[in-house]
Amino acid sequence: MTKYAFGIDLGGTTVKLGLFDGEENLLDKWEIPTRTEDGGKEILPDIAKSIKEKVAEKNIAKEDVLGVGIDVPGPVLEEQVVNRCVNLGWGVIDVSKELGSLLDGIVVKVSNDANAAALGEQWKGGGEGHNNVVMVTLGTGVGGGIILDGKILSGVHGAGGEIGHMKVNDEETETCGCGNKGCLEQYASATGITRMGHKFLKENTRPTSLVDDDTLSSKVIFDAAKTGDEVANQIVEKFGQILGKALANIAVVVDPDVFVIGGGVSKAGQILIDTVGKYYREFAFHATSHIELNLAKLGNDAGMYGAVKTVLG
Amino acid sequence: MTKYAFGIDLGGTTVKLGLFDGEENLLDKWEIPTRTEDGGKEILPDIAKSIKEKVAEKNIAKEDVLGVGIDVPGPVLEEQVVNRCVNLGWGVIDVSKELGSLLDGIVVKVSNDANAAALGEQWKGGGEGHNNVVMVTLGTGVGGGIILDGKILSGVHGAGGEIGHMKVNDEETETCGCGNKGCLEQYASATGITRMGHKFLKENTRPTSLVDDDTLSSKVIFDAAKTGDEVANQIVEKFGQILGKALANIAVVVDPDVFVIGGGVSKAGQILIDTVGKYYREFAFHATSHIELNLAKLGNDAGMYGAVKTVLG
Repeated sequence: MTKYAFGIDLGGTTVKLGLFDGEENLLDKWEIPTRTEDGGKEILPDIAKSIKEKVAEKNIAKEDVLGVGIDVPGPVLEEQVVNRCVNLGWGVIDVSKELGSLLDGIVVKVSNDANAAALGEQWKGGGEGHNNVVMVTLGTGVGGGIILDGKILSGVHGAGGEIGHMKVNDEETETCGCGNKGCLEQYASATGITRMGHKFLKENTRPTSLVDDDTLSSKVIFDAAKTGDEVANQIVEKFGQILGKALANIAVVVDPDVFVIGGGVSKAGQILIDTVGKYYREFAFHATSHIELNLAKLGNDAGMYGAVKTVLG
Repeated sequence: MTKYAFGIDLGGTTVKLGLFDGEENLLDKWEIPTRTEDGGKEILPDIAKSIKEKVAEKNIAKEDVLGVGIDVPGPVLEEQVVNRCVNLGWGVIDVSKELGSLLDGIVVKVSNDANAAALGEQWKGGGEGHNNVVMVTLGTGVGGGIILDGKILSGVHGAGGEIGHMKVNDEETETCGCGNKGCLEQYASATGITRMGHKFLKENTRPTSLVDDDTLSSKVIFDAAKTGDEVANQIVEKFGQILGKALANIAVVVDPDVFVIGGGVSKAGQILIDTVGKYYREFAFHATSHIELNLAKLGNDAGMYGAVKTVLG
């Protein structure tokens, strides 16, 4: 008898839903909007309704649903309780219990979105074939997720893999979103790379295609670096040096099989892996210096894959 | 029927052996010398002989021995193979198989010494009552061990918890034993603190009880700091700042319940916890800022306790 499971990636604007069979194949995927008004009180009912519609459409018997895995953009504490998802308007919510009860008792497992993305990439993406993966997501911020022996390392306070807030620079004068100074996120996120770009350009005297205005972005900088722009290359080198050092320091803590780098910034591709990898190998402790750096493969579907994996086991 | 297990801490000069009962009580402990001559070929036979003598002395039936846990001063790879213990003269050795066969098939589990010490402290020491513990051993070098959900995080290449080689200073000009520059061990080990002391004293113009000669040591510096010596206090503050920052960075990777600080340097006591803790809280990501720092409690017995715990489960 075919069994089924749902993987759900709950984002601040869109909910991505996937129907998988028990053999780990994605059968169908679709999206619904995330309604954050009124403290996000319609979010879980909307998701439950969408799942029930799909179950009816596909003529799936309730007893053939193994469960629902859902990731959320916020910290997940022990006992699956979600502690404040600012982007959803939520306070403390027991998502497993509430969504489970809306789904007439189907098992619901909850994970943090960065951790779910890491699990998805470990399972079917850039870390496939490895049990121990550190995933780094370079987006608006820097997120991280750590998979050890195939399981998410959530941490006691939901801060496992929150590597965007490693302190990498003692001299920083600007403040990170978290309130500290010198966090990895201030240099390695899309925003951070752009911020570094503005700084370099203010002090720059050499010819460059980069312009110090609102059009400057992480993508513009990487594109210019690929065409040989020296100033852009300097910025990319600085980015690589800072991220490479952070990964070397992570390696002597958890010592994974592989690092997987995803998020919007990673669309820069091989130049990013090459630059970060060069500094990683320079700074790494010898036993860890051969750990590979891979690009992520699942893009925006990583969370959905990871979420369903928590149910499929 | 009472069951028994042995915990063995294999050091470069001494082997510490402990006999435990299945209810986790230490019944007896003793030591034998580590004979490192001839590539350390007598080490395992000596240990087997000592265990057999104890089994005979206590009239223990072979079937009542649950197993032997042993830690070694070197990296332990998958399948329990030990990869070069420089201090023992060993190459690649399957300790589990060799010692097991010398003991007529008794189960032998092998762990790295720093990891075993962490497990011991998590079980019966400074981390008792917590499942997620990061142990930092400040001795001649800086060692580390990470316990997650009550299990050792060994890492894929045996480098899990090798936090002495986190890069904490980009400006360092002297080289660490590992070949890199700016490793935590260069500032937070007994040797590293003494090295910093010599540097401070070379540039010092203020009154101090510290003397820049061979008598300078980590202990002398901490003792002077406790009496209010300003220069000694400056050195201790620098130590606290560097170690506090490193622990803050470890916290956003593995997010433990507690940090346990042991090793010879930790005999300085509360001043060490207070100073490191002050900087830890300054640098830590908010979700992790309340993690406690405790002193280790088991001293030189930590490895023996951790080793036997790998057998008792």
